Amino acid sequence: MALLDENRLFPTDPAVRGLARDLYDGVRNLPIISPHGHTDPRWFAENAAFSDPASLFVTPDHYVFRMLHSQGIDLDSLGVARVDGGPTEQDPRKIWRLFAENYFLFRGTPSRIWIDHALQEVFGVTERLSAASADAIYDHVAACLTQDAFRPRALFERFNIETISTTESALDNLKWHGMIRDSGWGGKVITAYRPDAVVDPEFEGFAANVALLGEMTDEDTTTWDGYLAAHRNRRAVFKAFGATSSDHGHATARTENLSTGDATRLFDKALQGACSAEEADAFRGHMLTEMARMSLEDGLVLQIHPGSCRNHSADIFQRFGRDKGYDIPTRTDYVRALKPMLDAVGGERDLTIIVFSLDETSYGRELAPLAGVYPALKLGPPWWFHDSYEGMWRFREMTTETAGFYNTVGFNDDTRAFCSIPARHDVARRVDCGFLATLVATGRLDMDEASDVAHDLAYGLARRAYRL
Amino acid sequence: MALLDENRLFPTDPAVRGLARDLYDGVRNLPIISPHGHTDPRWFAENAAFSDPASLFVTPDHYVFRMLHSQGIDLDSLGVARVDGGPTEQDPRKIWRLFAENYFLFRGTPSRIWIDHALQEVFGVTERLSAASADAIYDHVAACLTQDAFRPRALFERFNIETISTTESALDNLKWHGMIRDSGWGGKVITAYRPDAVVDPEFEGFAANVALLGEMTDEDTTTWDGYLAAHRNRRAVFKAFGATSSDHGHATARTENLSTGDATRLFDKALQGACSAEEADAFRGHMLTEMARMSLEDGLVLQIHPGSCRNHSADIFQRFGRDKGYDIPTRTDYVRALKPMLDAVGGERDLTIIVFSLDETSYGRELAPLAGVYPALKLGPPWWFHDSYEGMWRFREMTTETAGFYNTVGFNDDTRAFCSIPARHDVARRVDCGFLATLVATGRLDMDEASDVAHDLAYGLARRAYRL
Amino acid sequence: MALLDENRLFPTDPAVRGLARDLYDGVRNLPIISPHGHTDPRWFAENAAFSDPASLFVTPDHYVFRMLHSQGIDLDSLGVARVDGGPTEQDPRKIWRLFAENYFLFRGTPSRIWIDHALQEVFGVTERLSAASADAIYDHVAACLTQDAFRPRALFERFNIETISTTESALDNLKWHGMIRDSGWGGKVITAYRPDAVVDPEFEGFAANVALLGEMTDEDTTTWDGYLAAHRNRRAVFKAFGATSSDHGHATARTENLSTGDATRLFDKALQGACSAEEADAFRGHMLTEMARMSLEDGLVLQIHPGSCRNHSADIFQRFGRDKGYDIPTRTDYVRALKPMLDAVGGERDLTIIVFSLDETSYGRELAPLAGVYPALKLGPPWWFHDSYEGMWRFREMTTETAGFYNTVGFNDDTRAFCSIPARHDVARRVDCGFLATLVATGRLDMDEASDVAHDLAYGLARRAYRL
Repeated sequence: MALLDENRLFPTDPAVRGLARDLYDGVRNLPIISPHGHTDPRWFAENAAFSDPASLFVTPDHYVFRMLHSQGIDLDSLGVARVDGGPTEQDPRKIWRLFAENYFLFRGTPSRIWIDHALQEVFGVTERLSAASADAIYDHVAACLTQDAFRPRALFERFNIETISTTESALDNLKWHGMIRDSGWGGKVITAYRPDAVVDPEFEGFAANVALLGEMTDEDTTTWDGYLAAHRNRRAVFKAFGATSSDHGHATARTENLSTGDATRLFDKALQGACSAEEADAFRGHMLTEMARMSLEDGLVLQIHPGSCRNHSADIFQRFGRDKGYDIPTRTDYVRALKPMLDAVGGERDLTIIVFSLDETSYGRELAPLAGVYPALKLGPPWWFHDSYEGMWRFREMTTETAGFYNTVGFNDDTRAFCSIPARHDVARRVDCGFLATLVATGRLDMDEASDVAHDLAYGLARRAYRL
Repeated sequence: MALLDENRLFPTDPAVRGLARDLYDGVRNLPIISPHGHTDPRWFAENAAFSDPASLFVTPDHYVFRMLHSQGIDLDSLGVARVDGGPTEQDPRKIWRLFAENYFLFRGTPSRIWIDHALQEVFGVTERLSAASADAIYDHVAACLTQDAFRPRALFERFNIETISTTESALDNLKWHGMIRDSGWGGKVITAYRPDAVVDPEFEGFAANVALLGEMTDEDTTTWDGYLAAHRNRRAVFKAFGATSSDHGHATARTENLSTGDATRLFDKALQGACSAEEADAFRGHMLTEMARMSLEDGLVLQIHPGSCRNHSADIFQRFGRDKGYDIPTRTDYVRALKPMLDAVGGERDLTIIVFSLDETSYGRELAPLAGVYPALKLGPPWWFHDSYEGMWRFREMTTETAGFYNTVGFNDDTRAFCSIPARHDVARRVDCGFLATLVATGRLDMDEASDVAHDLAYGLARRAYRL
Repeated sequence: MALLDENRLFPTDPAVRGLARDLYDGVRNLPIISPHGHTDPRWFAENAAFSDPASLFVTPDHYVFRMLHSQGIDLDSLGVARVDGGPTEQDPRKIWRLFAENYFLFRGTPSRIWIDHALQEVFGVTERLSAASADAIYDHVAACLTQDAFRPRALFERFNIETISTTESALDNLKWHGMIRDSGWGGKVITAYRPDAVVDPEFEGFAANVALLGEMTDEDTTTWDGYLAAHRNRRAVFKAFGATSSDHGHATARTENLSTGDATRLFDKALQGACSAEEADAFRGHMLTEMARMSLEDGLVLQIHPGSCRNHSADIFQRFGRDKGYDIPTRTDYVRALKPMLDAVGGERDLTIIVFSLDETSYGRELAPLAGVYPALKLGPPWWFHDSYEGMWRFREMTTETAGFYNTVGFNDDTRAFCSIPARHDVARRVDCGFLATLVATGRLDMDEASDVAHDLAYGLARRAYRL
């Protein structure tokens, strides 16, 4: 018995499946490049054992608890921490049982594939998770977690990860990254520069954050020039910890290219907490262009992740805080929104701007046409809810004809669920090989070319686009 | 010869088709749950014979006459009634011939499948409809209609309908439902509460309608409290005639959660006919939240059907009135529109809000993420123009990965074309089994699970979601 | 060896592929009707040899140079002319080599299919284009171009073109069409009426253009009546050169139906250069309705091509001018935008309005429902970026169920790349046959019907819709 079908996610026609299988066999064992994600660097710094199955699989995974919650299960009973520090379920076995009893809810979802993959490939489980098997699987996984072979660094090596990037706030002291560097361990764990707290006037404590940025950099961040210099300083520090990219998660794709005078005036208002919503949005948009200019100097790749309406439920946000599954995609315009930045730097050949989208309708209509002409612009892989079999397939179908493969940047897993990383990359490799096999079978590509492209999609493009 | 292929709508790969066939064989004969539709309760009350083939298949079916009209055929010549009562074609055989001559226009459309299914399965016709076969088929169907076995109740039983819901205005006296109840016939025909005429300030005769609502309920509907009490009263009456749901067809998905003071002020303006378009829209939006609150009290399921631009042609509306095929879907935002209502009641586990969409782009981007986290929210099946093979397939592909199967509510036929009901449910069962078979064949689901899900999609989910 | 797979673009399941093949064999050799495109009438007038492979395949094809440019290749080095007349690469062999070295970028794109098709079917090339094969293929194609059999008229005949339409400005003197007519050559090359320069108040030199229109027609185009009369006059001249259609490429689908007074006032402001952006947009929108009214008189088919954000890069526009690959699709509303025109003329049976879309989300939500009911409205084929295998397939999947096949108008190639014309029509025929075969294999259509429809999609619909 096995949880996983050897030919999963391949096209069903036997001839096409055979081609997909051949392509996949050529890339399945390539090292993992994970250039964008949210694993915790502390894991690799301390290399402590993971505590229990529930805190590994359930509590931190918003895909998992949002689905359970949608069927009426309280977040408290899944051990999700409350803002007020009040009581939530603490017994990991109880949380695991609740998860197992409701595992049928994940039928047809990517979580099902990722979890089955992790259970089988990481822990050797071959029985389907259910109420009946809950305790046995819990005991088995818990026993594994006590072994050295299941500590973070051992798993990192077993997962064949060549490079992984975490994401830290511009204000982070990067101490875990320092510990990793100083430890002598050979695993390549790098950081990425995420400055939301100091570029978004609406971020909690913006002025204090900018003041702290000044302290950390010995720059006078009460002035526009000092503020920009402080960014340059922090970016250099992040680069010293391996960073090759910055990351920006705004509500929309808006960019601006303001005059220095206008930017300075908005910055002063922002520090005073006097920006209107429109002005805050304009400031954020302008900072993307400033970051792009700094990228021209220091070579960091600029990642833009727009279009999520965060914390949609006022009640859940108040009780449980951010990132609790209530972030909902919205429509986003890219054509007009990106124009100011693209007019400023879009023609630069030495700049890489990677744009992600939560709005699939923009793939073929806006993003592929933009990435298919602007030298600086590339398309990030399908993101978040679209990081799935159908989502990846639609991405290729809707972007390839206009942008080709070489204006995309391979796959990134974007996850904090460590054990799902091999599963996610495996899904991407399977889908891409299936897509390429379909092109071959329909006379749109030759097999030697498909093999080249499969290698690039699994490995080469991510390495080159992120300069790793 | 047969009009219908036994394996129609299944995947073409032989192995996947075999799986689909196996799944379908397990659900094809399940009773029909039709929890939302527009059949005429008078049919079941009086149980009179249907008059002729044209008035059964052509004149009442907007899918049929809109396609014929799009190729230049006047609605008059199809027997569609004029607002001014002026002459239209009265000879059903002539109408039928016009339909038959142009039946090729329906190639590739769901109407073709529904009509072929009804002709073969209900009437035993095995020859394709065309100018050549028009008269023979007309005569055959007309002869059938004179037989008792083709009266509404006999067909209801032959169609294996377990429950069917009609939809009545809040102001309807439900006399046909009373007749059905008093007749002793065992068919379960229930109603649903549709209050557009008394919640939409822009509805013709709104103030008079609200006054009539007051008379019917002995409540003072000139006051806000009395108006709400009158709704509660009518909902209770509808429940006594079996209703388990209310239904709301607004132009957008807008909801509001106003203070009592603001709601009262808008209500007063509405009664005076003094609402601006914006105020009328806000009032409608607020009434959805009020209805949701009443649902928490009385258990009715709340259905929201937004996004149709009604009566697009001024000329056709003036000459032929509402519902003449000129209702065109528009873009609808759900993320911001539903937030006021969801903030008010979205976390309630004992409430079911079913949202439908005419804008497929919202499936993956907005609706599946919302239904995949809010306990109260479920996704209605593909609606109207999307109630078709491709539409159903896209619905599953774009919603399942994020919302799963269990945040959807099975199928409903939404039709006034009685003979098409078995055809429509059959199409849904075939598409769902084909989709599940594809999941199995690509290693995303095991066959025992697919079999469970197929049963739920065909029967269990509709029964549970609609509390039948 | 061959570049082309005989079964390319057909479904992969062997049984369905067999059906597709059978359908395709019935239409592959039908004459080409090209009712909308941008070939240069001078080619057919002078019948001069094409100069070299680069100027045939690279420099004029925005699909080709935009992709090369997106990877950092300057337009100068591809020989694209500069606005200032400054130096660009003049050596066609160097341009060709750059193209060949980067030909891998086109993997998975329609350009790859078109170019391979042209190389093999027009020039007999059987080796894949690459750095290694660049020179040999260049020499071979260059040698072909010196032969009479590769002159424009010979290729026209070899391509089996029954009718081709070019597109000329309302102000064009149509001298090349005159030369063709007077030459005695039998090839049917017609024109189409494109009045952007004289209906768009924001067009460069609008007032001067309108004055020139007056001179060309002996009408007083300083008055509204004279201006309309001048249009009628030019349309009649275009008809005399074979035109059966007009063509309108506005930024949005907006239409208006203004009173004569309002239209006159806007026209006066437009001549004075005093229109606001909103007024200019309203004027353009009104002119569509005026053109539709003229179509009722003179029978020209009205084509609307909305939704492109032109010249997105300010820098490229300044250095290289219009049509340099920087035209990006945007969201376009059709439901409200087309209503004024449809209320005016949408019910006319003797009028044909063909609407194209760059926004695929409008296919199923807006355009198919509109074309599926308004007698005057038809859907143009997938356009521009969607003129591809996946684009055509999505078009059929998203429009057929609501609009059927007979509210669409067959294929048009819309190209200035002459050698790609047979390739493009071949792709369309293959995709349509594959789609029809899928309908047959899934029991949605019988083979005799599919064969009829295949013929109509390849030939009959274009001929009838464009009145050729």
